[in-house]
Amino acid sequence: MTQGDTPSTGSTPNTQIRRLPERQMHDRAALDALLDAALVAQVAVVDEGRPYVVPLAFARDGDRLLVHGSTASRAFRVLAQGVRTCVSVTVLDAVVVARSQFHSSMNYRSAMVLGAFAQVVGEDKDHALHLLTARLLPGVDWQRPPSRKEAAQTSVLALALAQWSVKASAEDSPQDDPSDIDAPVWAGVVPLTHTWGSPRPAPDLPAGVDRATPRAILDWPQGRA
Amino acid sequence: MTQGDTPSTGSTPNTQIRRLPERQMHDRAALDALLDAALVAQVAVVDEGRPYVVPLAFARDGDRLLVHGSTASRAFRVLAQGVRTCVSVTVLDAVVVARSQFHSSMNYRSAMVLGAFAQVVGEDKDHALHLLTARLLPGVDWQRPPSRKEAAQTSVLALALAQWSVKASAEDSPQDDPSDIDAPVWAGVVPLTHTWGSPRPAPDLPAGVDRATPRAILDWPQGRA
Repeated sequence: MTQGDTPSTGSTPNTQIRRLPERQMHDRAALDALLDAALVAQVAVVDEGRPYVVPLAFARDGDRLLVHGSTASRAFRVLAQGVRTCVSVTVLDAVVVARSQFHSSMNYRSAMVLGAFAQVVGEDKDHALHLLTARLLPGVDWQRPPSRKEAAQTSVLALALAQWSVKASAEDSPQDDPSDIDAPVWAGVVPLTHTWGSPRPAPDLPAGVDRATPRAILDWPQGRA
Repeated sequence: MTQGDTPSTGSTPNTQIRRLPERQMHDRAALDALLDAALVAQVAVVDEGRPYVVPLAFARDGDRLLVHGSTASRAFRVLAQGVRTCVSVTVLDAVVVARSQFHSSMNYRSAMVLGAFAQVVGEDKDHALHLLTARLLPGVDWQRPPSRKEAAQTSVLALALAQWSVKASAEDSPQDDPSDIDAPVWAGVVPLTHTWGSPRPAPDLPAGVDRATPRAILDWPQGRA
């Protein structure tokens, strides 16, 4: 990532990457695994010719990405028009300390999805809202579902996983120049881990409700970020 | 974030946020703290009219953001032209499990910086490359600095911290509807922590080099993401 990995343009698909092509994968399973691990996507919104990048919680639903937000949100209203967008999802896995500054880098997984969002309506919207909760709060099946009014205040958008790329760097060891290997200095990989901490029950839980963390939440997979 | 927090446009500054304004801060210290905690920025690149979002390692240098990448990177060549961009930096701190799906949310810190990158050259480039390493690998002062050739292959860009906003959500407790509080279900906050794992020394460290993690790396601050 420090080397400025970049999508190329003007070719088909637009998600072809010019720099460091060895890091690019056309592996749908890798895409799905990354999208299912990440909780936040960075979404490009071009509004009146100006680019913005908006962080949004998201979930993968098969061959599409789902996001939801307030119908009053300007970003959602712009995206709902079907304008061209780019969604970037990145998880940082490690910092790689090489013998040289130049070869120091990061291990990461990153996906880019191009296309345009479409509004999700009707029964599909109910399904999508349910699925967003199921993915973002797995196993939490006791919550009150959205009221009609709450659902009406919520915009749900979907982006097809049609034009995408995944890149990853997963160096076990720094890729130093051969002439640097004998330098009498430490080099290696420093993992960055993303783990759930101890859940804090709401202070206003009513008497009689078990304050202990529910099994479903204790079972949340680690590595989400 | 699940509510689609969004920048407004057409007002001054463009970083004014319409939705959930209580979450927006005009606090430079909060901006600096977030930018100094995060390692990766998501950078908008509009190329031939198409938006892309590119993850880049970055560092704050006083009143500017620095990124570096290959001079062969298309994103860097486009950004170096001084086109309008948006940089988004987000750190996810917790998932908030409310009694209702609608009020479930995330705790996060997020910054948006608008403007245009400018190329960093000459002595300032040497300074910037040094500072990027110092921020991304704090305390690691033993690495070989870039050779003239390596520096020539590296593009360094700077973006002034002039037009920016910071948003944060740090709920101690879910913000449920009063009518939901008595529901006999668990609610609370599940923190997401970002911590360094055990460093792995390079397998090809020469004999005589201590494989133990250097003090400087053991001292890396936690919470970077």
